[in-house]
Amino acid sequence: MIDTLPTITTGTLPGSHKIYASGEIHEIRVPMREILISNEAPLTIYDTSGPYTDAAAFIDIAVGLDEVRGGWLHERGDIEEYDGRSVTAADNGFASGERLTPAFPIQRRPLRAVDCRAVTQLAYARAGIITPEMEFVAIRENEGRIAASQRDGDALGAKLPDLVTPEFVRAEIAAGRAIIPANINHRELEPMVIGRNFKVKINANIGNSAVTSSMEEEVEKMVWAIRWGADTVMDLSTGRNIHNIRDWIIRNAPVPIGTVPLYQALEKVGGVAEDLTWHIFRDTLIEQAEQGVDYFTIHAGVRLHMIPMTAKRVTGIVSRGGSIMAKWCLHHHRESFLYEHFDEICDICRRYDVSFSLGDGLRPGSIADANDEAQFAELRTLGELTKIAWAKDCQVMIEGPGHVPMHKIKANMEEQLKHCREAPFYTLGPLTTDIAPGYNHITSAIGAAMIGWFGTAMLCYVTPKEHLGLPNRDDVKTGVITYKLAAHAADLAKGHPGAQRRDDALSRARFEFRWEDQFNLGLDPDTAREMHDETMPAKAHKVAHFCSMCGPKICSMRISHDIRAEAEKQQGMAHMAEKFREAGALYVPTEQAE
Amino acid sequence: MIDTLPTITTGTLPGSHKIYASGEIHEIRVPMREILISNEAPLTIYDTSGPYTDAAAFIDIAVGLDEVRGGWLHERGDIEEYDGRSVTAADNGFASGERLTPAFPIQRRPLRAVDCRAVTQLAYARAGIITPEMEFVAIRENEGRIAASQRDGDALGAKLPDLVTPEFVRAEIAAGRAIIPANINHRELEPMVIGRNFKVKINANIGNSAVTSSMEEEVEKMVWAIRWGADTVMDLSTGRNIHNIRDWIIRNAPVPIGTVPLYQALEKVGGVAEDLTWHIFRDTLIEQAEQGVDYFTIHAGVRLHMIPMTAKRVTGIVSRGGSIMAKWCLHHHRESFLYEHFDEICDICRRYDVSFSLGDGLRPGSIADANDEAQFAELRTLGELTKIAWAKDCQVMIEGPGHVPMHKIKANMEEQLKHCREAPFYTLGPLTTDIAPGYNHITSAIGAAMIGWFGTAMLCYVTPKEHLGLPNRDDVKTGVITYKLAAHAADLAKGHPGAQRRDDALSRARFEFRWEDQFNLGLDPDTAREMHDETMPAKAHKVAHFCSMCGPKICSMRISHDIRAEAEKQQGMAHMAEKFREAGALYVPTEQAE
Repeated sequence: MIDTLPTITTGTLPGSHKIYASGEIHEIRVPMREILISNEAPLTIYDTSGPYTDAAAFIDIAVGLDEVRGGWLHERGDIEEYDGRSVTAADNGFASGERLTPAFPIQRRPLRAVDCRAVTQLAYARAGIITPEMEFVAIRENEGRIAASQRDGDALGAKLPDLVTPEFVRAEIAAGRAIIPANINHRELEPMVIGRNFKVKINANIGNSAVTSSMEEEVEKMVWAIRWGADTVMDLSTGRNIHNIRDWIIRNAPVPIGTVPLYQALEKVGGVAEDLTWHIFRDTLIEQAEQGVDYFTIHAGVRLHMIPMTAKRVTGIVSRGGSIMAKWCLHHHRESFLYEHFDEICDICRRYDVSFSLGDGLRPGSIADANDEAQFAELRTLGELTKIAWAKDCQVMIEGPGHVPMHKIKANMEEQLKHCREAPFYTLGPLTTDIAPGYNHITSAIGAAMIGWFGTAMLCYVTPKEHLGLPNRDDVKTGVITYKLAAHAADLAKGHPGAQRRDDALSRARFEFRWEDQFNLGLDPDTAREMHDETMPAKAHKVAHFCSMCGPKICSMRISHDIRAEAEKQQGMAHMAEKFREAGALYVPTEQAE
Repeated sequence: MIDTLPTITTGTLPGSHKIYASGEIHEIRVPMREILISNEAPLTIYDTSGPYTDAAAFIDIAVGLDEVRGGWLHERGDIEEYDGRSVTAADNGFASGERLTPAFPIQRRPLRAVDCRAVTQLAYARAGIITPEMEFVAIRENEGRIAASQRDGDALGAKLPDLVTPEFVRAEIAAGRAIIPANINHRELEPMVIGRNFKVKINANIGNSAVTSSMEEEVEKMVWAIRWGADTVMDLSTGRNIHNIRDWIIRNAPVPIGTVPLYQALEKVGGVAEDLTWHIFRDTLIEQAEQGVDYFTIHAGVRLHMIPMTAKRVTGIVSRGGSIMAKWCLHHHRESFLYEHFDEICDICRRYDVSFSLGDGLRPGSIADANDEAQFAELRTLGELTKIAWAKDCQVMIEGPGHVPMHKIKANMEEQLKHCREAPFYTLGPLTTDIAPGYNHITSAIGAAMIGWFGTAMLCYVTPKEHLGLPNRDDVKTGVITYKLAAHAADLAKGHPGAQRRDDALSRARFEFRWEDQFNLGLDPDTAREMHDETMPAKAHKVAHFCSMCGPKICSMRISHDIRAEAEKQQGMAHMAEKFREAGALYVPTEQAE
């Protein structure tokens, strides 16, 4: 069935290997990454990359990943297998023959709740049940720590425990402050949690290109994004083969997969927004729920009366989903079917545990439009919808902007916390200026780090190609690494316990000229090593006791070592001065340094 | 004398040309860049690039730039030409024969104040004199605006006038809140102002590499940095040929040039820190002052009793200057000659108007060391030194960190404002996490944008190579653009009047699918265009009425245009709905879109 060579990136990251921690309540194996350090204990860190970086794992994308959650689901006794909806030609945009992406080879019967019951993590949490998913994410968040680390930071209202317990996770989910996006049909999932009181997460978007995409390419996009740290992946494909490609992605995805079902629904009506119906949309939701999509972006907050509020904007409506629904509403002159049928959408989501990502269809697309009437009107509606979803035991997060100058970022978080009652916030950036096309991963990393500190639970990445074109492989990596560093900066500022361990380990390596450790402890060991090689290619330089910027002649860190050694050995400045008098030159002959 | 082909980058930026504004008080020509926009009035913006982007300018680096300030200086009647210090072999690290970089062909007699008078902008400002330099920067800051723009932002204590007047500049300088680094021997300078109540500025570092550098290469590094927006350039060269290369740079520099004189002094004593003497250092100051260096980093704040405070740090002392002085202090067991002779240093600086950049020799080099005792002890000393310098009519700015997590950034600004009485702050980043070697332009842009908003007047750039190697041409450009966008994000957040004009113009272009305008209004038109070409290479796509990310099928902006057009034309939603009913499909055939 696969006639091109597989291009899936596998293998450990430099200096790292995969380890698994066990559960105490449930039989679970929680993957983590251990970074080996030359003269310290290994550092255990959060690992999003799945079995692809496990040297012992067998990878065949035509088979899919192991069903990590298979046993857990059936234990609960509230789900049933059934004959799912039949795949139609419309699901794949009427692609046929050579243009049709082959179906995933193994087709399972889908699962759903018995009797329309809620099989959501929220329902279990409210019932006082600690699920395997909850214990899994609790262990995962602790990154192998068994004791509290030194606390620092300013949590700005977040409550970060020294160690995350399964009960803490349960309570956070029960309160609606966190979600575990985990469709019961995504049995390959390694669960993760999104919430203000956990580590800040990041999402990467992928999607098939208009021209052509093989399933290997699409799976590889996902694998590549999680290799560098994407916590969730959104499949924003449009055009043909949406259904089949999504199947390939989900069956091979250890991370939650999100979608915007509206995109596929629109394909089914030939792109004519006003021809969209609740029936077609509902059918698409079930189609995707059966496949295992973990969260749906639903633009139910775009209401008819808000649309004129966007007329005076500099950049109008910039959300694709928002503009489609706005057009629909205007054409039919009524509230959208998403808003009117929101109850029924909840009934579907609860039966599969598809989480809501309530879309911000009216987010600002420019600095000029930030925090305007339309944006905040929609946010208040999202707060109302959150209440409805919660009443149905559905898990909810809220999408946020967009383009916002720094001084208006905090208001976004405050309004969201107020109107959406601490449901997790999930923002795109925000971009803090409009004047840097080509560099919007950076303009937005500034906003993302800040809003992450203020309380946003997940940051949707932005690549350098934003506003300009489709991201290539390098752009995806740059976007993911940029957002990892922004999320980490937020964790540090919040004082997330343990967050500083990696910074400190890397800084110690830097101070002690352990170059390999420095590279391996960084977010992107390959790029760091390449950059060092560019100036100092010799292997000997990797143990050089000087930094390649200053060279061996003036190296502040060398001198600091002398100072420290002396301070530790001796009391009193007089002796230190004497010692240095003997030590002599700052210049270190290159041979000696090597 | 020049036997390789010149490699200096000249020519206008795409869609732009150079214009000059005139003074009202003085005969001055203030350069600005005008960006032509297809269906709007041109946008006038700040321009750091000097004559190199003036199509009418004649560039020959062996002649140097025109002496913009030549006439102004002599008008004041308080300076004299004299026979300067003779260049010694030690000044160029004893380079000889082919290894000696040729001297700059035209050697002028240097200028100095008559009778040790203060010929500083601060002295003039205090005397109530509005110099040509002051009027120049006033006009420059207004970027061609003649009226107030819409005000937004949260200035956090900064006082930003609607329009900058020469008198406002004078008052800010008199108060010590701003400086115009402008050595009287740098007659080629286009003056610029650094202060909390002006636009946030950025600095780029350059420096010769250990191996070999021609003077063309070094001049080109400076020209390349200012082309993309560097407001000042620091020449951090070490090794041989320091003197001659610096001459080539300054004679061709329209921006202020800063140095760390300690580096050259150290070369003169063969790299043995403890052999440094006040005499050698003093001689180096005069050497560089006569050449026209506009500001000196002086690490006079590193005091003997502070050194043990760094012993327990994770990364010790990371400032080169700081570590050299620490070693000197320990060896001699006394306060540094910089501290003890600070008065005399002021006497030199005031005679040439070299501004101080008081170095933060004890800045933190890791998240773990941020805001520690050593750092803030030094900052308080810098505050004391500021008072001494001001008493001598010397201009002063204060250097700041370094590595600081987000929640500790504000304290840096507050302490600096308090102890240094609003003297301009000049920070390196700060980097907000240590875990991203290879991406430290981004980890630091986050901190830079924030501290810029909080009140920092100038941001020293960080390139992707930070901690790893020497930046190449691409790294320098990436660093400069990254810092331009961070500084601009800060200007927006502060509510700098007029800052949003460029964002709005670009956003309008984006909304109206004017692709060429979008590229040209951005910080880096070349990269934006290349990225667009990668996905949509056809020339026709540059006028395409859709964004290359979504393609023609689902384009939110297209729909927004329908909504807006209708809202403007009609009252009432009923009619709008009707209109949309007629309009039909969202899909736009590609041919039609093109």
